[in-house]
Amino acid sequence: MKRLVLIRHGESIWNKENRFTGWTDVPLSTHGIAEATRAGKEMKKEGFRFKKAYASYLSRAIKTLWICLEEMDQMYIPVVTNWCLNEKHYGVLQGLNKTETAEQYGDEQVLLWRRSFDVAPAPLEEADLRSPVHDPRYDDIDPQLLPLTESLKDVVSRMIPYWYDEIRPEVEKLESTDDGEILIAAHGNSLRALVMHLKNMSETEIIAFNIPTAVPYVFEFDDQMNLIRDYFIGDPEEIKTLMAQVANQGKAKK
Amino acid sequence: MKRLVLIRHGESIWNKENRFTGWTDVPLSTHGIAEATRAGKEMKKEGFRFKKAYASYLSRAIKTLWICLEEMDQMYIPVVTNWCLNEKHYGVLQGLNKTETAEQYGDEQVLLWRRSFDVAPAPLEEADLRSPVHDPRYDDIDPQLLPLTESLKDVVSRMIPYWYDEIRPEVEKLESTDDGEILIAAHGNSLRALVMHLKNMSETEIIAFNIPTAVPYVFEFDDQMNLIRDYFIGDPEEIKTLMAQVANQGKAKK
Repeated sequence: MKRLVLIRHGESIWNKENRFTGWTDVPLSTHGIAEATRAGKEMKKEGFRFKKAYASYLSRAIKTLWICLEEMDQMYIPVVTNWCLNEKHYGVLQGLNKTETAEQYGDEQVLLWRRSFDVAPAPLEEADLRSPVHDPRYDDIDPQLLPLTESLKDVVSRMIPYWYDEIRPEVEKLESTDDGEILIAAHGNSLRALVMHLKNMSETEIIAFNIPTAVPYVFEFDDQMNLIRDYFIGDPEEIKTLMAQVANQGKAKK
Repeated sequence: MKRLVLIRHGESIWNKENRFTGWTDVPLSTHGIAEATRAGKEMKKEGFRFKKAYASYLSRAIKTLWICLEEMDQMYIPVVTNWCLNEKHYGVLQGLNKTETAEQYGDEQVLLWRRSFDVAPAPLEEADLRSPVHDPRYDDIDPQLLPLTESLKDVVSRMIPYWYDEIRPEVEKLESTDDGEILIAAHGNSLRALVMHLKNMSETEIIAFNIPTAVPYVFEFDDQMNLIRDYFIGDPEEIKTLMAQVANQGKAKK
């Protein structure tokens, strides 16, 4: 059996303020740090021993990963960061408060922007300082590849090739759980893109599927890389509540 | 010009207790965390933008690196860890208090163990739980390569090949400071091994050379990889004091 663990970063200061974050590099909130610490402790208790870890280029995912590895005494493992694991780019919405946007445009439009499969928010102008071409971390990446907005479909288009080229071969190489596991620390939508692929979900199914923050999500594969089962680590009732909280974030306050 | 920056980890809880640490994986002290934070702030102020970073397999070096990268908003850069950057293995001395050892064996013997070029402390028994073969982080490494004690000469023998094979090519690739710098977060003796090589020091010179904790140490090379100059970042008087403190650690309390 080969195991892959996904973890969505803990709460960021903008999750807390209910603002669209996307590629904006905001740090974890104090609560997010506590969530990541707890996830690390749980994975340690479950005996995970990671062979290699992946994270996006965004600090909140990397910090979540670092906190977990520190809790697990596994700081030395190889870590690879890549922009293909980044959150969906939210275009002109980046920085806006979700509740305000919902009040202005209505729940339905916001849900469409947040959760439709192929509709992307209006793109940033390239001159906009929020555009990735102005961020030195993306200097080595072909500017043609850097998005100014993205739909979930666009995220799938960058995430799945990266899965096949880089991560899947590492999972496949694991001969048994004695070899350890592969860990991915990323974001609501980049993980959703991967889960859609791994679980062969429809566009409708993935839109309704919410990944709770900082709850380790385990995928078990057989020797032929067929998915055997997938499960969250933690109390099922609590996870249900956390998933519902994520789903409600985009709704206007009554 | 190409630039390499070395940083010795901040104070660990065992530095503080004045115990021989070696390969024991002890965390940074609160003071060590503050030192690393300050180093990160200084490197940020000086405009360093790291292309790639290296750290040993030991948490105190990795944590020092992580703190610096977080301070500098450069958490996303590629980080490579390798046991060849580990501290000198202190054999049977690992865990002993330096002052007690000095009182028992005399300043001279302790200085010899700590600082002679080719005399290693008595080796651990392989069955000793302190031996690296019992630590899962070294599972993938040929047990024949893992030391049970080391002299500084032994550290040179693992550090310099790693420098030539892995790190030096990355420094050489930098065309100018626009390409950023390479950072190594490691330990008193693994960095001493490298400095000896880079500055072409004698055995006597390197034994007398003390690297202060968490002070960025910059090496500048020309296009042919000739060393142009090397300097610490910070107040020269303060650095002198810090270097003297390291030199005095192994002496018995009067």
